[in-house]
Amino acid sequence: MSYLDSEFYQPLFEAIATGDEAQIQAAAATFNAADLAEFVEENPDNEEGVRLLRALTTEQSAKVFGYIGPNTQTLIAELLPTQDLAELVTAMPSDERADFFNLLDENRQHALFQSLASKEREDLRRLASFEEGTAGALMSSEYAVISTGMSASEAINLLRNTAPDKETIYQAYVIDNQHKLVGAVSLRNLITAMPGTPVDDLIATGLVTASTDTPQEEVARLISRYDLLALPILDQDERLVGIVTYDDAMDVAEEEATEDIHKGATVGKLETGLRDATPFSLYRSRVQWLVILVFANIFTGAGIAYFEDIISEHIALLFFMPLLVASAGNAGAQSATLMVRGMATGDVTIADWGKLLGKETLVASALGVTMAAAVMVVGFMRAGPEIAFVVAVTMIAVVMVGSLIGMLLPFLLDKLKFDPATASTPLITTIADVSGVLIYFSVATALLSLP
Amino acid sequence: MSYLDSEFYQPLFEAIATGDEAQIQAAAATFNAADLAEFVEENPDNEEGVRLLRALTTEQSAKVFGYIGPNTQTLIAELLPTQDLAELVTAMPSDERADFFNLLDENRQHALFQSLASKEREDLRRLASFEEGTAGALMSSEYAVISTGMSASEAINLLRNTAPDKETIYQAYVIDNQHKLVGAVSLRNLITAMPGTPVDDLIATGLVTASTDTPQEEVARLISRYDLLALPILDQDERLVGIVTYDDAMDVAEEEATEDIHKGATVGKLETGLRDATPFSLYRSRVQWLVILVFANIFTGAGIAYFEDIISEHIALLFFMPLLVASAGNAGAQSATLMVRGMATGDVTIADWGKLLGKETLVASALGVTMAAAVMVVGFMRAGPEIAFVVAVTMIAVVMVGSLIGMLLPFLLDKLKFDPATASTPLITTIADVSGVLIYFSVATALLSLP
Repeated sequence: MSYLDSEFYQPLFEAIATGDEAQIQAAAATFNAADLAEFVEENPDNEEGVRLLRALTTEQSAKVFGYIGPNTQTLIAELLPTQDLAELVTAMPSDERADFFNLLDENRQHALFQSLASKEREDLRRLASFEEGTAGALMSSEYAVISTGMSASEAINLLRNTAPDKETIYQAYVIDNQHKLVGAVSLRNLITAMPGTPVDDLIATGLVTASTDTPQEEVARLISRYDLLALPILDQDERLVGIVTYDDAMDVAEEEATEDIHKGATVGKLETGLRDATPFSLYRSRVQWLVILVFANIFTGAGIAYFEDIISEHIALLFFMPLLVASAGNAGAQSATLMVRGMATGDVTIADWGKLLGKETLVASALGVTMAAAVMVVGFMRAGPEIAFVVAVTMIAVVMVGSLIGMLLPFLLDKLKFDPATASTPLITTIADVSGVLIYFSVATALLSLP
Repeated sequence: MSYLDSEFYQPLFEAIATGDEAQIQAAAATFNAADLAEFVEENPDNEEGVRLLRALTTEQSAKVFGYIGPNTQTLIAELLPTQDLAELVTAMPSDERADFFNLLDENRQHALFQSLASKEREDLRRLASFEEGTAGALMSSEYAVISTGMSASEAINLLRNTAPDKETIYQAYVIDNQHKLVGAVSLRNLITAMPGTPVDDLIATGLVTASTDTPQEEVARLISRYDLLALPILDQDERLVGIVTYDDAMDVAEEEATEDIHKGATVGKLETGLRDATPFSLYRSRVQWLVILVFANIFTGAGIAYFEDIISEHIALLFFMPLLVASAGNAGAQSATLMVRGMATGDVTIADWGKLLGKETLVASALGVTMAAAVMVVGFMRAGPEIAFVVAVTMIAVVMVGSLIGMLLPFLLDKLKFDPATASTPLITTIADVSGVLIYFSVATALLSLP
């Protein structure tokens, strides 16, 4: 049952080919909404995707539509008449609706707005106004509410009746008359309590919450850390305005991991996946750091130029330069990557830096000695004992220097209020290159000029 | 309410200092289990952590214990008498119990085994036997089961009575008399249905499932893709043997992202976080690729040595070498990283490679031209028009070659059944270094030897 299997969607293609709505619905019923969304994304051009969406009920197609990526959503929006679009949008969950709304151009937004009922319009206006990447932009306003003073069975009845409009009924929130969050009751606790138990006895207080401007990665981290089904989101006045559910948190966590991985190789933010990215958006996300690093590497060139004399005298030194300089960069890339990821997951904090410095010094010396041993043999065979010695000494020094730069730079960036992830592998490699060249030829000058 | 705040745990320290169990329990009640676990991890040496665990009820301390990392779990296990440990272990969820059991040495495992009731013993024997990193090792055997033929209200009653032993009651599974999975019913659907509705009318079939040997990253991907609360796990005979819940999937996703990020910088698998890692485990995870790359870089050195004549003749060429070679590596690191991550998230598949090759060629030429323009100015100022031209031509060539290597290598590795993530930034940089040197001095030889 793999969604990557090419025969997987065959029944759907066949049903759509018949053009019969009932047949299409029957075929679609055997698929998950996420798979139907993929089908639509894979077949946007020949309109089979749109024909599928049209054949489904509004509720079904709204569900599928929520799983579709922004590019294809925009494409489909252009193909649908405003009235159909308004029906679809009304049936979408509030958080997905707001995200989709923000994709449309102003004219379309305006037309859509006019076609919505006032309740949806108000909700949409509010949700669509939050800055992307915050809890406000991520949250759904369809949370379940129960009141103090109810019994467990009354609360269950209330949830039963309001369920169709709610994102989840597994967590219900208790608010006071100023809409401030008092606590939460899980459906599990409501079900297992005696029917007459007052809800007040079941309320969990001291909830973990976030505010509308909490960054989305922090929202995902809270949900993951506390194993929450949903995280309540409060406005500045501590009023409950929405919830973020675990499934959205999983998407955010993946998105944030992708962003961190890209940053580690100096790739900037992309709005879409690689497959859907335009050449220009890829160019824009990559060019900045490449050009910066070109100029940074001039220092390495200048370092080499400075040592032209010793190089001309011992041209054999050049042979070992790439290997020494690269080793410094590679060891540095390792320690920087370990550190940046550790800081991103909360495994290490700035308070740990002293302890980690000691450990890194130990590890880097061991790595340096191992690599010096490997390179000494090569050095001896190719260039004799003198240069072998220079190369081995340099190796230990550059691996240690590279590792320590890699370890310290993320902390330094964090202290200076920069994103530690700016300590990307290419940046570390560049810094290690400069240091490597300077150390190598300094060591060579010192040792080879001895009488 | 930040768990990173140093004053956060003050009430707990104070309560523990009194030594009064009721006071400790009252203070602990205001914290989440995950926070209490962090408290224990932060205070393992002075035993305040153990004193907290001892003061809690067995249920509470089992919950907290489940959030504690393996290193501290082992440490605490050594401090507790076997009988206390057995009580704690009995109260733990089955999946966490099995993970913990696998941390103990054989003697302790044996002693613990003797102290458990036969039901827990059997369950533990089974769960602890699955290979780490598979669905089997991740799953819990405490899933809720209901039978066909029941009414919705009977099913709710059953869930109410069995809830205390279940990981979740929000999904209940229907199995036949051979224990094969027939379908699932959500508590949401049970609640919203009329009480007399037959469960059979509410069953969702065609469930997404995994088997006990499915890799854990695939389990996490399925749960995330289909927004599942829990994924049923089947044995070879299609019998239901466990479930993996969304919260475990979130932990796996984070773990896998960390592993991928580390791999991108040639850091091997670490069993713990960076903070808890021993110097030796860090050394072991880093040394292998560093040594491999030392030898790979010999080719770059050999390339330079091969061109010693043209270098001696135009020593100014050396100045530009680091910048050209590094640019090739940096552009390659970008495209490899984009590709590896795209493949890991399922955004791009091997079927997309042709389309992506075209796009990458376009993007890389644009990047190459931009960088050539930047470097041409520097070249002209430092070394005159001839070398400026060589440098600019080389820049375009190396950025394109680097980018295409970075893009194609992950696909090639995947085709050869290697992990595409082996195309780490340091490996790409090394390959780009060799190619960069060869291209640069070949271009220089060709253009500078012209009459």
